[in-house]
Amino acid sequence: MSTSMAPSEQHVGLIIREREPVNLEYPFDQLDTFLTPNDLFYIRSHFKAPVLDRHEYKLTIGGAVGKPFTISYEELLAMPSVTRPATLECAGNGRIFLVPQVKGAQWQLGGISTAEWTGVPLSALLERAGLDANACEVLFEAADKGTPKEEPVPPGETPYARSISVEKIADVVIAYAMNGEEIPVDHGFPLRVVVPGHYGMASVKWLTNIRVLTEPYKGYWQTSDYGYWAYDENRNPMRLALGQMQVKSAIARPRTREFIPAGSTYNVYGAAWGGEPYIETVELSTDDGKTWRPVRFLDEPQYGAWRRWEFEWAVPADKGTYVLKSRATDPKGTTQPEQHDKMNGTYVIHHTFGIEVVVR
Amino acid sequence: MSTSMAPSEQHVGLIIREREPVNLEYPFDQLDTFLTPNDLFYIRSHFKAPVLDRHEYKLTIGGAVGKPFTISYEELLAMPSVTRPATLECAGNGRIFLVPQVKGAQWQLGGISTAEWTGVPLSALLERAGLDANACEVLFEAADKGTPKEEPVPPGETPYARSISVEKIADVVIAYAMNGEEIPVDHGFPLRVVVPGHYGMASVKWLTNIRVLTEPYKGYWQTSDYGYWAYDENRNPMRLALGQMQVKSAIARPRTREFIPAGSTYNVYGAAWGGEPYIETVELSTDDGKTWRPVRFLDEPQYGAWRRWEFEWAVPADKGTYVLKSRATDPKGTTQPEQHDKMNGTYVIHHTFGIEVVVR
Repeated sequence: MSTSMAPSEQHVGLIIREREPVNLEYPFDQLDTFLTPNDLFYIRSHFKAPVLDRHEYKLTIGGAVGKPFTISYEELLAMPSVTRPATLECAGNGRIFLVPQVKGAQWQLGGISTAEWTGVPLSALLERAGLDANACEVLFEAADKGTPKEEPVPPGETPYARSISVEKIADVVIAYAMNGEEIPVDHGFPLRVVVPGHYGMASVKWLTNIRVLTEPYKGYWQTSDYGYWAYDENRNPMRLALGQMQVKSAIARPRTREFIPAGSTYNVYGAAWGGEPYIETVELSTDDGKTWRPVRFLDEPQYGAWRRWEFEWAVPADKGTYVLKSRATDPKGTTQPEQHDKMNGTYVIHHTFGIEVVVR
Repeated sequence: MSTSMAPSEQHVGLIIREREPVNLEYPFDQLDTFLTPNDLFYIRSHFKAPVLDRHEYKLTIGGAVGKPFTISYEELLAMPSVTRPATLECAGNGRIFLVPQVKGAQWQLGGISTAEWTGVPLSALLERAGLDANACEVLFEAADKGTPKEEPVPPGETPYARSISVEKIADVVIAYAMNGEEIPVDHGFPLRVVVPGHYGMASVKWLTNIRVLTEPYKGYWQTSDYGYWAYDENRNPMRLALGQMQVKSAIARPRTREFIPAGSTYNVYGAAWGGEPYIETVELSTDDGKTWRPVRFLDEPQYGAWRRWEFEWAVPADKGTYVLKSRATDPKGTTQPEQHDKMNGTYVIHHTFGIEVVVR
């Protein structure tokens, strides 16, 4: 039983951010392939992973629909499927860079990974059920539950659940395979919702119910937790649910304080993601943001997936400390900010920051 | 200047729950008249009271309306007015009875008072502005602001603001007088919204803007603070804004541990409020809830106002400790619960509880 093993035995090579429930980080400095191998894919859990039986498992589709129904795991596997890549990033990825330190798992760079997901389009299930005319959101309910951490906390156990707007339905896959393999327990076996373009909290693991709503959802996981503040026109802060991944890039190599030979050629390597509808440009600075030059992309742009990039750095002959920064921009001109926006609290950490290296 | 005086000099006879900002409790054991004198009316403040100038003051009415406008204090005074009583109860009244102790001002019984309010009906102002067809809520914005206490807390200063549903408009008075006097600074001079039937947090003090909204408001004061949890049909907790005062009664006299002569006649005295649309019955128990008998009301029922009541207790000749309890019920049969509902957090404390007295 994989779930009874300690994370260190089970997930060799992942960085431990929390042992129980398991919160493990992809070693981002090893970024190489477009798809992250399943055993290196980051794991974000709120509670102990539920172990669901494939034979007894049922998914229910209900709420504001004409014909609610229940479907077994085997029946889902027999439906027409789609396969598509999606990059999932934990909304708290990069939290360790916030000063002073904030609460929550201290993700550095690797609270992000990309997989190719195979499953049934959400739209196929909802077409069969028939959406009511006043449907406004689709709620995904999961089998994991427990006492959550962010105030205000409801009494008793709170099951995990997240909603999306009906406008987002077309993008969503109810996935049963991850990189061609059955979804591992820690990644949501038997079924994981995959919401391309949204932070990972939207891609609900251990899915049990799909429920169509006629009013915006106000559950714990999009009010107390996974929310942010935005000002209305009179500068009153409003509490909104996190969704869309914001424009971001990160340098996988070199690593902080890495020694680099003076006068050599160094292949700076990284990835960029988020943006509407994808990342169009990434620029690199080797002088702490004074000057910027474009990188070379290794992947074509596509919605909801990262683009790896590289940059041949002609390392100066002058020895000393250099600060490298990357900066991504989408086709609308939205670019990474220079500072963390406090309205995002301990989430959406996507500002540019320097990687200090030592040329010697 | 009244606001520069210490609460103890300024508000003789009120119980201090917090000195700054001033949070002062009505001495409920002195309950006597239907209307609470202004100088004994409880005070709930989140921040220092703003001191607004009557000549420079302007109220704006805007948002989803056809003809937004601004009106001065003098112009409001010249409009046709209404006068009506309303009982305001702090949503945290009775918090001191929660075990273990919770955070927040430790109100006992007197976070409640009743006044007669004179002002302009909200409906008159909104008729002049003309509500858009898709109006759904009316937001009241105030001049007081600061850093609030309940997590999650937005960055910077948060102004006080609360909304009501458009269905509630007909009840609301934009009040400039309290028991026939100009509204005191600590009660919201120059204008206080009065929302009969709702907890006090809805009756916004120091009102500056009335803004009509086309979507439910998600501001700090009805999400992080002044919210509660309710289960949806699948037992997922949803975060909702507090509103309607719940069915409640309280015993003003005797007080806890009061000595009462054996064999005497004691006039038990109290009040009841909340309920839809008013309190229909109050029962008293002198044996810790084993048996109940109806009380005699001193006030007629009316929406949004308390009803005082009394009960002639034939005190037993048997000396000892007796536990008195009161229990209110509305015409729909909704009655006070026996336990605090944890879904209400540190608010809506309206369960029955015993007052222990000593007969000797």
